[in-house]
Amino acid sequence: MAGKVFFSVSMSLDGFVAPDDVPLDVVFSPGGQSDPRVQRWMAKWSELQAWIFPQRFFRENLKLGEGGEEGLDNDIARATYERTGVSVMGKRMFDGGALAWPEEAPFHTPVYVVTHEKRDPWERPGGTTFHFVNDGIEKALDQAREAAGDRDVRIAGGGTTILEYVNAGLIDEFTIALSPVLFGTGIRLFEGVDSDRVALEPVRAEPGPRATHLTYTVRQR
Amino acid sequence: MAGKVFFSVSMSLDGFVAPDDVPLDVVFSPGGQSDPRVQRWMAKWSELQAWIFPQRFFRENLKLGEGGEEGLDNDIARATYERTGVSVMGKRMFDGGALAWPEEAPFHTPVYVVTHEKRDPWERPGGTTFHFVNDGIEKALDQAREAAGDRDVRIAGGGTTILEYVNAGLIDEFTIALSPVLFGTGIRLFEGVDSDRVALEPVRAEPGPRATHLTYTVRQR
Repeated sequence: MAGKVFFSVSMSLDGFVAPDDVPLDVVFSPGGQSDPRVQRWMAKWSELQAWIFPQRFFRENLKLGEGGEEGLDNDIARATYERTGVSVMGKRMFDGGALAWPEEAPFHTPVYVVTHEKRDPWERPGGTTFHFVNDGIEKALDQAREAAGDRDVRIAGGGTTILEYVNAGLIDEFTIALSPVLFGTGIRLFEGVDSDRVALEPVRAEPGPRATHLTYTVRQR
Repeated sequence: MAGKVFFSVSMSLDGFVAPDDVPLDVVFSPGGQSDPRVQRWMAKWSELQAWIFPQRFFRENLKLGEGGEEGLDNDIARATYERTGVSVMGKRMFDGGALAWPEEAPFHTPVYVVTHEKRDPWERPGGTTFHFVNDGIEKALDQAREAAGDRDVRIAGGGTTILEYVNAGLIDEFTIALSPVLFGTGIRLFEGVDSDRVALEPVRAEPGPRATHLTYTVRQR
């Protein structure tokens, strides 16, 4: 049986999945940390993701050391990782991540990058191999499904890529970790959603200590 | 002991509390129902509020007849009504509501309307009296608190009025009934929120059969 296509992101209560658009190469540039825009970006990003940093799974997966919290938030972070056979991401997320991830990137699976850039597969220690796909989101998903077998395909991000998959009717379900923060500005997950086409069916809502985890199935109207 | 100041609204997963801005006097105008903009407005509004219409409390309160659903969604609708000693609303919500509510308006308490219009109190059958306050949101709230005694004051809406109270630091807590819909466009609850000032503390998340009820305390940073 084929797996599902899903996404899983942290969102502010007012609908943002990233702070104001400071380019990631600025965020991760040498000396970037002293730029006030970057400091603000980092502070907001940290609030959005605050639920996951202390979790045991997160610390294990990024080799940050022993210990960490256990409970619903941790269980959900681990389950999301374990169901994922392959990830798909946009070029901007890849470029940003390439600056931020440790050498042993935290996927440990094939990752398909939707890009115009032609490039050979990039194999990282620990089982992550990035494949660069040049013919659009559907073809990238076809390849990802094939590689995932009966496990699920995660559309990892960023927000623009996720929304392209939503509007193309290619997402089966998704989970939002709703963080108790208000951003006011930034990048909205559902900006430009085709609401005449996309309908949601609630699957479950799980109140974790640090975020509320909301899962929906996507239906076409 | 003084009561709390709270609001309680239905919000789409993408952050909207009302569909596109069709003026309410158009929505409720004679023949308005045949206007395609109004039909679209009504369809979206109905989806947003779909969780409450079938509830026993809602049907009772609007005298729509016997019966209705019971359960968490119903309990929350009833508890919100019962805690409310006084409501406060903006002029646009009042004008729209005056066209939509039955003669026996569904508040059964004093209601303070923030407006520039000078007008004598308007008493309705069933215990609702509208008072028109001309000197801003703080003075309206002072009068509402006084009248509410030890019960709570509900900032009823619309979205703009709620946000003015949020940004003025006058809200103690709020509950959002998060509806499983995406609007794409419309009126956003938190558009213009002062995110440098407002911080949230999660109180509880309650998964109802038709909506997820999220309660937060508001803190000043």
